[in-house]
Amino acid sequence: MAGGRALPAGPDAEARFVGRYLAPLAAGLPGAFGLLDDAAALSPSPGDDVVATLDTLVEGVHFLFDASTSDARRIALKALAVNVSDLAAKGARPYAYLLSLSLPDGFEHWFEGFAAGLGEGQRRWSLSLAGGDTTRSPGGFVVSITALGLVPAGRMVTRSGARAGDIVYVSGTIGEAALGLDLRLESPRAALVAAQSAPQAVTQWLARHATPEPRLALAPLVLDHATAAMDVSDGLVLDLDRLARASGCGASLEAARVPVSPPARRLVASGVVELSDLLTGGDDYEILATVAPENAALFEASAEASGVAVTAIGTMRAGAGVDWLGTDGTPLAFARRGYQHVDG
Amino acid sequence: MAGGRALPAGPDAEARFVGRYLAPLAAGLPGAFGLLDDAAALSPSPGDDVVATLDTLVEGVHFLFDASTSDARRIALKALAVNVSDLAAKGARPYAYLLSLSLPDGFEHWFEGFAAGLGEGQRRWSLSLAGGDTTRSPGGFVVSITALGLVPAGRMVTRSGARAGDIVYVSGTIGEAALGLDLRLESPRAALVAAQSAPQAVTQWLARHATPEPRLALAPLVLDHATAAMDVSDGLVLDLDRLARASGCGASLEAARVPVSPPARRLVASGVVELSDLLTGGDDYEILATVAPENAALFEASAEASGVAVTAIGTMRAGAGVDWLGTDGTPLAFARRGYQHVDG
Repeated sequence: MAGGRALPAGPDAEARFVGRYLAPLAAGLPGAFGLLDDAAALSPSPGDDVVATLDTLVEGVHFLFDASTSDARRIALKALAVNVSDLAAKGARPYAYLLSLSLPDGFEHWFEGFAAGLGEGQRRWSLSLAGGDTTRSPGGFVVSITALGLVPAGRMVTRSGARAGDIVYVSGTIGEAALGLDLRLESPRAALVAAQSAPQAVTQWLARHATPEPRLALAPLVLDHATAAMDVSDGLVLDLDRLARASGCGASLEAARVPVSPPARRLVASGVVELSDLLTGGDDYEILATVAPENAALFEASAEASGVAVTAIGTMRAGAGVDWLGTDGTPLAFARRGYQHVDG
Repeated sequence: MAGGRALPAGPDAEARFVGRYLAPLAAGLPGAFGLLDDAAALSPSPGDDVVATLDTLVEGVHFLFDASTSDARRIALKALAVNVSDLAAKGARPYAYLLSLSLPDGFEHWFEGFAAGLGEGQRRWSLSLAGGDTTRSPGGFVVSITALGLVPAGRMVTRSGARAGDIVYVSGTIGEAALGLDLRLESPRAALVAAQSAPQAVTQWLARHATPEPRLALAPLVLDHATAAMDVSDGLVLDLDRLARASGCGASLEAARVPVSPPARRLVASGVVELSDLLTGGDDYEILATVAPENAALFEASAEASGVAVTAIGTMRAGAGVDWLGTDGTPLAFARRGYQHVDG
């Protein structure tokens, strides 16, 4: 963290702050030198590749901010989660991360919660802070994390390995985070969503959006069985487009097979939300994976055993384009395939 | 870069923008997958450690911004330079980097210059873009780079290895970037500095501040000979304090031995600036290194041969604290030891 710029005021104040809140997060990684050096020395095992990914959350774009300590904890946890989710989808096991934190003046009180959130995520997902930089930011909070994971050399699971005939799987359930965002933003339909849902469903959707849980239990199965994989962050429909394009394939999907939780399914049945809203909503942080048919049974069984179910939702095919069959048996069209992040 | 959030507008626009300007910067690194995947797979050679460092530049804190394309090029180059400087000071050879770029809306025209600056830095310092994230930023520009380098396993040069008796070296010249910042900010003394200096000195100082040159040629010598090293980014005096404290040593330095360029020395002689202003100014991006006496002659000769001179400025000693002997033979005191980054 050294060499970083003044926060909250002056290099020594930064050092105190780093020492107090962040250095404990580096205790598990000898090469982090307690964040007292200019860089970390990371020693991957021989035969491993380092998988590197970076995701940035910006106040007003990826999160709204009420300056409370609980918000600080939540933002830290989400920033780490979205990066760990990328590692899981690549078949990698988490190893270390670097943090860039740009903060407005006068947020010392906020730091404790932020560090607590990072600590919680580290323990849950088994990685350590390796370094970073804390800076003042006149324009608002920006949190950027570079996460590093490990896979056996040459075996990172890409987006581009799917082949015609592969079965398309998605983990968990889709669309709950989008409902959580509706509720958090108090969108026009939020009142209807809340009125027609059980309180525990509302709580669950808010939690899905606020603190996604990376599907790390699936990482070794993705590594062993998937021909291609990615996490679903910008909506299932758009992310499937991307995987198919990267793989040079088309795909045929059935909307009715997409895993949707019973309370969310009831909202669709009652017409409060469209199924397509769930399929194109963002922030699911589920894993999308393609698996050759001969490995499908083992993949499904292993996933079940890992505690994270996967559901087959269609098949890769030759050609280009992703077709969705609607629940009424006719092709499904989407007003928007993608998702613009303006998170709560 | 995938999985990143909308810039300039919508995920597909981001993909086009990344493909056009950033993907070419990843061409040299097969594991970057043309920035089309969610992560990069990096394959360090067996027996190497990965040295990881992160530095963030924030508009209004680390740079002022006039929205011109030449400014974009300069900011990109500086963001990469300060990270490569950290690698060099750790004895590492550059390998790859990840980029987080948060931009206000409407800056598409700015991107070409930014990518050109990154490309220039990559070619000069031999590393490739491995991934990252581009995000909208309502609050201003934030550029964060995670740089990854390689050293033989276990041999990263830390701040903490200096021993009593080691000779303290600094590369190049000190204080020119501080003069450049004065000129750039049009500080009260800038007019005097400019009036009493040759035009080529003024140009040189502005360049030292605007586009620092990491001392990469010294990296292998630091690796072979230094007991401790770091780059000088927050002022020589403060950074020496840090190195001494990390190493559990004191140090005795002579201000008269600090390498200062002849035009800067003339400004000191004429009383326009104090020598202490140069010793505590920031952004030098020189290398501070300690070397055991028996290796000093070889270190100096090898540095000379590499094209980057190093100068012995004092000695590490037992105890604590860093003493500076002034040019008049009396102890030198500093009104401030450190440096607050408000760069031009």
